[in-house]
Amino acid sequence: MIQNDRISILETGFSFWEHLSEEEKELLAASCSIVQFEKGALIHRHDEICIGMLLVLSGQIRTYILSDDGREVTLYRLYKGDTCILSASCVLDAVAFDVLIESVEPTEALLVPLPAFHRLMTQNVHVELFAYKLSTERFSDVMWTIQQILFMGADKRLAIFLWDETAKTGEDTISYTHDQIARYIGSAREVISRMLKYFSEEGIVSLSRGKIRILDRSRLKGYL
Amino acid sequence: MIQNDRISILETGFSFWEHLSEEEKELLAASCSIVQFEKGALIHRHDEICIGMLLVLSGQIRTYILSDDGREVTLYRLYKGDTCILSASCVLDAVAFDVLIESVEPTEALLVPLPAFHRLMTQNVHVELFAYKLSTERFSDVMWTIQQILFMGADKRLAIFLWDETAKTGEDTISYTHDQIARYIGSAREVISRMLKYFSEEGIVSLSRGKIRILDRSRLKGYL
Repeated sequence: MIQNDRISILETGFSFWEHLSEEEKELLAASCSIVQFEKGALIHRHDEICIGMLLVLSGQIRTYILSDDGREVTLYRLYKGDTCILSASCVLDAVAFDVLIESVEPTEALLVPLPAFHRLMTQNVHVELFAYKLSTERFSDVMWTIQQILFMGADKRLAIFLWDETAKTGEDTISYTHDQIARYIGSAREVISRMLKYFSEEGIVSLSRGKIRILDRSRLKGYL
Repeated sequence: MIQNDRISILETGFSFWEHLSEEEKELLAASCSIVQFEKGALIHRHDEICIGMLLVLSGQIRTYILSDDGREVTLYRLYKGDTCILSASCVLDAVAFDVLIESVEPTEALLVPLPAFHRLMTQNVHVELFAYKLSTERFSDVMWTIQQILFMGADKRLAIFLWDETAKTGEDTISYTHDQIARYIGSAREVISRMLKYFSEEGIVSLSRGKIRILDRSRLKGYL
């Protein structure tokens, strides 16, 4: 990659760029590197693997928590253009919790390694603000997950609906609009769309125009 | 309250104070006020009630979410010296979720009203950083709640233990150390202590030296 390309990525990806001194810009440009993760690679594990901040260039990464008995709950997913901040959580004092981060598919990212990130964050308040504002955005993602999946039961209600409908017809595919499903199970169209997207990202269903196909009945059953 | 007292509270309570200009210090000191909330008063409700940032002087406030069917989950509690930031969530772009906040007991707080808070946050990056760093600390509190209560099942395991032990003896009080309980139910002492504190704040048990007394059996049953 040519140096200019990299600077253009840094300028676009990190809103704090304009607040950096010339020396800080040089430090950032010189220290960052392009990293590749294979499908399923573990990117972050509590404080054991803590590599720094990642700007996703292609692919997909997933942040999740793991229960004692091995059950996983996906908190959120990041795609091209998104910045992964919890992969630098070990230098963020206000982050006092543990998550796991993995690449769901082959992923390319720009890595700002931990030492450089830490130094920039310590000496420039705009970098620190960027980190904590991003953390708060992830907080919003997690709150959605809690409210809809763990708490409001929208996942369960949707899973029951999908299970019952396919049991009725004996087929794997049902034809309903998101709006119709929302009215059937007393939810909002927006919630159903986001929940179906979640199920589809988890590989439980596949979505095509007006149709929902069950791909993994045993995982769907786990939500009943 | 004398002006000097108030400035001393602002200095101690808000770490951004030293980064404010003289004009900003004056704005903050002149706009903030002492507010009282009765027991059970609603302090924040989505974007309908959004009064600004609160520094708790005495009492206790609770942040919680409410399900469609009226079930409440307490996310965290704040006490003397804590700052409540989500009561100003309507001006924090990165906060895209809804919570409810109430005073659990008669509470006195220093209020930085929304317009002044918004103005300070817009013109001084240190105030914005303070707000988002605090939000991230609350994110940590919420992650603890999710992992232990909604996900890891520590609440359920502890409730089963308390239920079974009191059923065995027919009494309302059991005598175990937190460490003993942790070993019985395969958890960590720290988790049991925090979970018992949670149950005690919810009014389900009362704690005294080496003893746990069940106060509300029907609520305890809800965790089984």
